[in-house]
Amino acid sequence: MNIPEMVHHMAGESKDAARRLGALSREVKDRVILRVADLLAERQAQIQAANRQDVDAARAQGMAAAFLDRLTLSDQVFTSMIKGLKEVAALPDPVGAVTGMWVRPNGLKVGRQRIPLGVIGFIYESRPNVTVDAAALCLKSGNSVILKGGKEALHSNLALARVMQDALSEAGVPQAAIQVIPSVAREATLELLKQDELVDLIIPRGGEGLIRFVAEHSRIPVLKHYKGVCHIFVDESADLDMAEEVCFNAKVQRPGVCNAMETLLVHAAVAPSFLPRMFARYRKANVELRGCPRTREIDAQAVPAQAEDWGAEFLDLILAVKVVDDLDGALDHIARYSSNHTEAILTRDYGRAQRFLTEVDSSVVLVNASTRFNDGGELGLGAEIGINTSKLHAFGPMGLEELTTTKFIVYGDGQIRT
Amino acid sequence: MNIPEMVHHMAGESKDAARRLGALSREVKDRVILRVADLLAERQAQIQAANRQDVDAARAQGMAAAFLDRLTLSDQVFTSMIKGLKEVAALPDPVGAVTGMWVRPNGLKVGRQRIPLGVIGFIYESRPNVTVDAAALCLKSGNSVILKGGKEALHSNLALARVMQDALSEAGVPQAAIQVIPSVAREATLELLKQDELVDLIIPRGGEGLIRFVAEHSRIPVLKHYKGVCHIFVDESADLDMAEEVCFNAKVQRPGVCNAMETLLVHAAVAPSFLPRMFARYRKANVELRGCPRTREIDAQAVPAQAEDWGAEFLDLILAVKVVDDLDGALDHIARYSSNHTEAILTRDYGRAQRFLTEVDSSVVLVNASTRFNDGGELGLGAEIGINTSKLHAFGPMGLEELTTTKFIVYGDGQIRT
Repeated sequence: MNIPEMVHHMAGESKDAARRLGALSREVKDRVILRVADLLAERQAQIQAANRQDVDAARAQGMAAAFLDRLTLSDQVFTSMIKGLKEVAALPDPVGAVTGMWVRPNGLKVGRQRIPLGVIGFIYESRPNVTVDAAALCLKSGNSVILKGGKEALHSNLALARVMQDALSEAGVPQAAIQVIPSVAREATLELLKQDELVDLIIPRGGEGLIRFVAEHSRIPVLKHYKGVCHIFVDESADLDMAEEVCFNAKVQRPGVCNAMETLLVHAAVAPSFLPRMFARYRKANVELRGCPRTREIDAQAVPAQAEDWGAEFLDLILAVKVVDDLDGALDHIARYSSNHTEAILTRDYGRAQRFLTEVDSSVVLVNASTRFNDGGELGLGAEIGINTSKLHAFGPMGLEELTTTKFIVYGDGQIRT
Repeated sequence: MNIPEMVHHMAGESKDAARRLGALSREVKDRVILRVADLLAERQAQIQAANRQDVDAARAQGMAAAFLDRLTLSDQVFTSMIKGLKEVAALPDPVGAVTGMWVRPNGLKVGRQRIPLGVIGFIYESRPNVTVDAAALCLKSGNSVILKGGKEALHSNLALARVMQDALSEAGVPQAAIQVIPSVAREATLELLKQDELVDLIIPRGGEGLIRFVAEHSRIPVLKHYKGVCHIFVDESADLDMAEEVCFNAKVQRPGVCNAMETLLVHAAVAPSFLPRMFARYRKANVELRGCPRTREIDAQAVPAQAEDWGAEFLDLILAVKVVDDLDGALDHIARYSSNHTEAILTRDYGRAQRFLTEVDSSVVLVNASTRFNDGGELGLGAEIGINTSKLHAFGPMGLEELTTTKFIVYGDGQIRT
């Protein structure tokens, strides 16, 4: 079998497995997930040996330290994978829940029932632990999954897949429920993206380059976000002590992630009092500040912001700062430059908080809290398989429910249409 | 401006309008919808004159009577458009509703709030009344819409768009909220399908050829169904009197629509008693019966079914009939041939009803009722803009709520992530 034939064959097996998974009880699914946790512990040394092959090869190719770090299945990563599996097992099963039921005038009882999506294609980069996290969420939500990880992680991913398939077999669940594509060829990804008769959804996770590649080549619906250009607007009525803490957290706590703040908007009335203290704090943390002309009138040390700084996702200790006249100025800037990911307002004003919540068209809109809370776990979804910034299906972080859909179930007693 | 420039410009205006529409109160939206109803009545003669141009041109081109009928804005069609508008105005506004809110351990209040999708591209064929129906649903759900109708209906669609834009203007709502593309060129459709930065969703409505064309060329998510190959399984425990009525209704009441039954599956234990009476009834209504070998053992008059009859959407008084051994046989046949649209079981057996509801992977699954009930109005959604048989976003008939999504709104008091 060549690569396209192999991927097509895997997708067919995945679809067959999905029919079984949809009817699986929570008890069986949780048993598999907890068994994976046990097997990971049992076979840790073996899996780490496979992982070492990947890490050594990547090191020989001169990959950067941060890359090697992400690739390494350290003891700590094992602990975290096992903890994650136990948490997923403890989550409620979304499948089967009837989200509403009503009676029509003719007596038909109509309900909507949660069902799995079917087959999910998950395409990601170099962290092999994602293989286990994503597979557990797909299984718990009754979906089969085809995983295509980064080429540098292939040995690790196949070792992890073997553990998961063993756990599936022991519980009598088809192994095809969780498959890792055993190829590093781009051709394999392209073929997966063509399986629109067999695969229901593609979720890519990684850098903007990977996501754009997937979105451009997929015939299957893709849930994704290209980037997070998150804004915070400090209103004139903001509690400036709170604002200092929140703005510091949003930029500095973990600058390399999609929900970190990239642009700070400050109301002109408080800019003279707020910016100096905020900037002093940022500078101690080595944040590079790129300001608009009005910002630089207050703080001449700030680097002049260039046009491309607005809307940029720095993923680093860099912050664009703009002074705006009022809430409308902030809303206009956000409407133009936001990535529809996460925006926050810091204010004590009731009306402005309400307007911001209503008018900002982003997947998560916050009042008086850090943008870093756009995360399935932090928002209470229990877990997260990704964040979607297109409006369709699930806008924002996606947990188990977002890996399901609903069908209509109708109980009749002979109704016909007249 | 050439056609691509024009369509791109319209999409930009539509996106600007959408920002306004999202914050519009129900009162204003309903006022516009009811004003359209009034203006349709006032300007009926004028619109019918525009429609006559289309109908005359189509007749001169030798279009079939059924086509001319669909194209004609008769007095009766006006009555129905006006009634439809009043019904949409009477429906609740889905926008702004908070579908759930919970408190996190750190005190963050997290909710999900309904918001419009944004800009909808609606692509359809020759019924000009659809222009008004679809536009009203988009407006009510806070979305702006770009309509591309069939080329034979252009004068009619533009006349209807003028009425709707006048009503928008009178209420101070941007006219770009409802736009009809003033071109019959396929290039215009192709350009619309490329506007993934401006348009959030494409809904095509029409024959399988149109839908496939749209799905193949769109860079924007498409909600659609290619066809409805609906099955009814008559179980051995079915009430055969009820089964006769339901099976007759599902095939004969309106055979040309997507929720009509195309294949009848009958349990072997009742086939000898059920098929003769059912076939007698069908033959009186001129239904052509195409049977499997076991069907033809019972009724030799039935045409031998060919391989391509299974899974065929006849949209006509033709029915494929298969005798199956049991529920598993029916489920296997459905899993293989269904279009995931609508399937029904007729049974008195509790366990089989439950299994059928759970295991059939279709957007609407019914017990003891006609497949003809897969319709937004009939199921209680109030109205319907289309039926989606892909799993993403909204599986099945789509009403006002399905034209919205939710964003997360978060009320904090200074929370930061640690």
